[in-house]
Amino acid sequence: MAKLVEVTDVILRDAHQSLMATRMAMEDMIPACADLDEAGYWSLECWGGATYDSCIRFLNEDPWERLRTFKKLLPKTRTQMLLRGQNILGYRHYEDTVVQRFVDKAAENGMDVFRCFDALNDVRNLKTAVEAVKRTGKHAQGTICYTVSPVHTVEKFVEMGERLVEMGVDSICIKDMAALLKPQPAYDLVKGLKEKLGEDILIHVHVHSTTGVTLVSLMKAIEAGADIVDTSVSSLSLGTGHNPTESLVEMLEGTGFETKLDLERIYKVRDHFAKIRPRYKEFLTEFQGAETEIFKSQIPGGMLSNMESQLKQQGQGDRLKEVLEEVPRVRKDAGYPPLVTPSSQIVGTQAVFNVMMGKYKVMTGEFSDLMLGYYGETDAEKEPEVVEKAKEFGKKDPITCRPADLLQPEWEKLCDEAKALEGNNGTDEDVLTYAMFPQVAPKFFRERKDGPLNLGKDPSSFEAGPVSPDHPGYLSAPIDYDVKIGEKTHKVTVAPR
Amino acid sequence: MAKLVEVTDVILRDAHQSLMATRMAMEDMIPACADLDEAGYWSLECWGGATYDSCIRFLNEDPWERLRTFKKLLPKTRTQMLLRGQNILGYRHYEDTVVQRFVDKAAENGMDVFRCFDALNDVRNLKTAVEAVKRTGKHAQGTICYTVSPVHTVEKFVEMGERLVEMGVDSICIKDMAALLKPQPAYDLVKGLKEKLGEDILIHVHVHSTTGVTLVSLMKAIEAGADIVDTSVSSLSLGTGHNPTESLVEMLEGTGFETKLDLERIYKVRDHFAKIRPRYKEFLTEFQGAETEIFKSQIPGGMLSNMESQLKQQGQGDRLKEVLEEVPRVRKDAGYPPLVTPSSQIVGTQAVFNVMMGKYKVMTGEFSDLMLGYYGETDAEKEPEVVEKAKEFGKKDPITCRPADLLQPEWEKLCDEAKALEGNNGTDEDVLTYAMFPQVAPKFFRERKDGPLNLGKDPSSFEAGPVSPDHPGYLSAPIDYDVKIGEKTHKVTVAPR
Repeated sequence: MAKLVEVTDVILRDAHQSLMATRMAMEDMIPACADLDEAGYWSLECWGGATYDSCIRFLNEDPWERLRTFKKLLPKTRTQMLLRGQNILGYRHYEDTVVQRFVDKAAENGMDVFRCFDALNDVRNLKTAVEAVKRTGKHAQGTICYTVSPVHTVEKFVEMGERLVEMGVDSICIKDMAALLKPQPAYDLVKGLKEKLGEDILIHVHVHSTTGVTLVSLMKAIEAGADIVDTSVSSLSLGTGHNPTESLVEMLEGTGFETKLDLERIYKVRDHFAKIRPRYKEFLTEFQGAETEIFKSQIPGGMLSNMESQLKQQGQGDRLKEVLEEVPRVRKDAGYPPLVTPSSQIVGTQAVFNVMMGKYKVMTGEFSDLMLGYYGETDAEKEPEVVEKAKEFGKKDPITCRPADLLQPEWEKLCDEAKALEGNNGTDEDVLTYAMFPQVAPKFFRERKDGPLNLGKDPSSFEAGPVSPDHPGYLSAPIDYDVKIGEKTHKVTVAPR
Repeated sequence: MAKLVEVTDVILRDAHQSLMATRMAMEDMIPACADLDEAGYWSLECWGGATYDSCIRFLNEDPWERLRTFKKLLPKTRTQMLLRGQNILGYRHYEDTVVQRFVDKAAENGMDVFRCFDALNDVRNLKTAVEAVKRTGKHAQGTICYTVSPVHTVEKFVEMGERLVEMGVDSICIKDMAALLKPQPAYDLVKGLKEKLGEDILIHVHVHSTTGVTLVSLMKAIEAGADIVDTSVSSLSLGTGHNPTESLVEMLEGTGFETKLDLERIYKVRDHFAKIRPRYKEFLTEFQGAETEIFKSQIPGGMLSNMESQLKQQGQGDRLKEVLEEVPRVRKDAGYPPLVTPSSQIVGTQAVFNVMMGKYKVMTGEFSDLMLGYYGETDAEKEPEVVEKAKEFGKKDPITCRPADLLQPEWEKLCDEAKALEGNNGTDEDVLTYAMFPQVAPKFFRERKDGPLNLGKDPSSFEAGPVSPDHPGYLSAPIDYDVKIGEKTHKVTVAPR
């Protein structure tokens, strides 16, 4: 008898977040739901991460309505979301009541599995979220962000796993956002967690495919006892996305492990998204290969393109190599944080500043906050000299407490502010939207009545043509005409300026 | 101490054959040779397969000059070629003298490793080639074409391996052209070969990446004792190509296996081909993902597109599904040949005929030859009724001998014919070119003096523009102008016809 390996498909969330800037319209996902629901997945990740932001910022879509729709269309399968711990789905720390309210509302609207992570792996930033999930009776998953550094040993990660279990999580996720998890470390880490935490704590492995090695890592994680793995249906997979679900299923044949997935259903889902994908051409990541230099630089793809555009804006596009060498030094100074939103942007931007203006001559507010503990603890000591500079730049003292402990109750204030906005529907859900995205929410509330947008376009509109839809009349090459007016023919050349 | 795993890079041959229709110009490969030669490969596959045909048919380049150039530019690394046994690099069986002459000339011009395969796995079709290689003192590699069928067990393949060893091969290649080799069968097959043939016979594993599972298969093959594996530098990898070399190197970290490859050199090669690749956009395969339905249909990608275009030409494009279901039945009738050039085309075309005109109502000459043994033996019994029909259609009796045993000496005749052609340079190499490609050689001999072509184009020429380089003045959408002549403004619309 082969051992059952469970699978979470991320095609409704992380796949399009990783491959098409989180732009997929709900109406393009709905037709795939029936087959996804029948295919035999442990769960379907379909909410959270950047989807909430994208819904209100780009798609004029209420994220809570999206959640309710998925719940209705996926009655047989657990829904799953990615939750940034104390940051909820926003970009700052929230006071505990806000976090709790969010979790309650998400559970009430249909969320089953809450994958909770903190960018610094500071478990104190997960405690409120995990406890709130437990109170709703839903599945609380604690997350270890995988990273590579001299201090990040298997033992260190297993210790973190123990603290998560003490906190009451139902399962542990190993989250490898940058595809750095190689096969042997995957084996050792899963083995270490299983041995220390016992067989009953489910181990769930999430890897991206950027470096091309992580399907092998999933194989090794499964051999070491991983219970659940994340993949994405092939037509939205690979590159900076995830390993193809179908390949995982086929890979296991004869190995003593098997999924219970129905490939015929999955081929229908594949065909659906293969048709949808070209409609989002303008948002698709160009990268479709395998990039292993990340192992050396530790710099994930999204972070690299950010830094490149920052340098170009300053007319210093030729200094990328220096910046790439500076990033690991800045990361060391900051106590080796994993590089994931927001730490990747904070470290990357500071590295750009260091190269352009001299080492720590200027410090961003976010970087000084990171150095002073305002995002939480890091796994390694921070460089004391740089902490001193952060005190000067930030005009603040370092803290060692949980950052949210410094926050005042804010729920009532957020309610008052949210409810004063035009178009606010008076629900707690709208307060949460305002709380997380105060700049974007007002416009969204006003325009919500117009209904969701679909940013996908007929693929033929991307084909070569003389007139760009954005610049009517724009030409990229000269055209010669004979123009006859009355009896006289004029030679006319129209050229781009 | 980690065990050394050797690597063959196929970027100079199979990578561009699989991804860009074998069109890469020699001048685009030359700049990468120094780094490839220093990177620490066991060998570099750089010749044979379809490259000979492509050189004379499309690139006006003497393939023998290409071989000599590679030999000069790769002094530290073995050169390697793919040889179709008794077919040499052509599409029919040749009399033994021609095969021997080809091997002698290839060795003389700089070939070190000869990978010899037969599409039907009939070892009798490899004997002349392998013995000829042995006489030159070069490395003779015998090949097992991997396929899946009720008769293709590990035992069956190991038996074939034994026959190859008896023949005197220096190593055995497992050739998985359709990416059907899953991890566990890869392990079992390598293990089986090693146990039966002994540790001294090198096992070399060649897989494509089409189904997305074969990097895992390489891991398992390595665990089972494989000595050498084939990969391709990342910028020309994946899809219907091969697994990325860099990913293989990184994958092995900590596993007890390691390559001796220098990644810094390989990154330079990667950057070179990343720049070259867009120049061949019109030849690039569109497919860049993972396709697992091949496991069910057994139909490799190239064969699928052939059948699609045959059906469309007959106005029956909607019958592809029927054809896909017919292919496995035709393959069974034919004794389960592996589907690789030319058997894939022969089986595929017959399946198209069966669907369009009724089961075996019409039989192609090639299919009746296959059924009657004129390509060699198959591993399973052929369907007797279909053999009877083949006799009628082919007006021939079945044979059981080695097909080349029926051939008359032909070298002198080929010499006379070749040397009568304008532009023939009087060498045995030119006779071989004529022997393998009698239709193409005359034009090539005449035009050779004009020198090699580079079919790559400036990538900007593929960008959207109103004027196609092939159709000057062609528009794909209307443009409106205000044209002022003297004092009068005319509204002019220029629209495509």
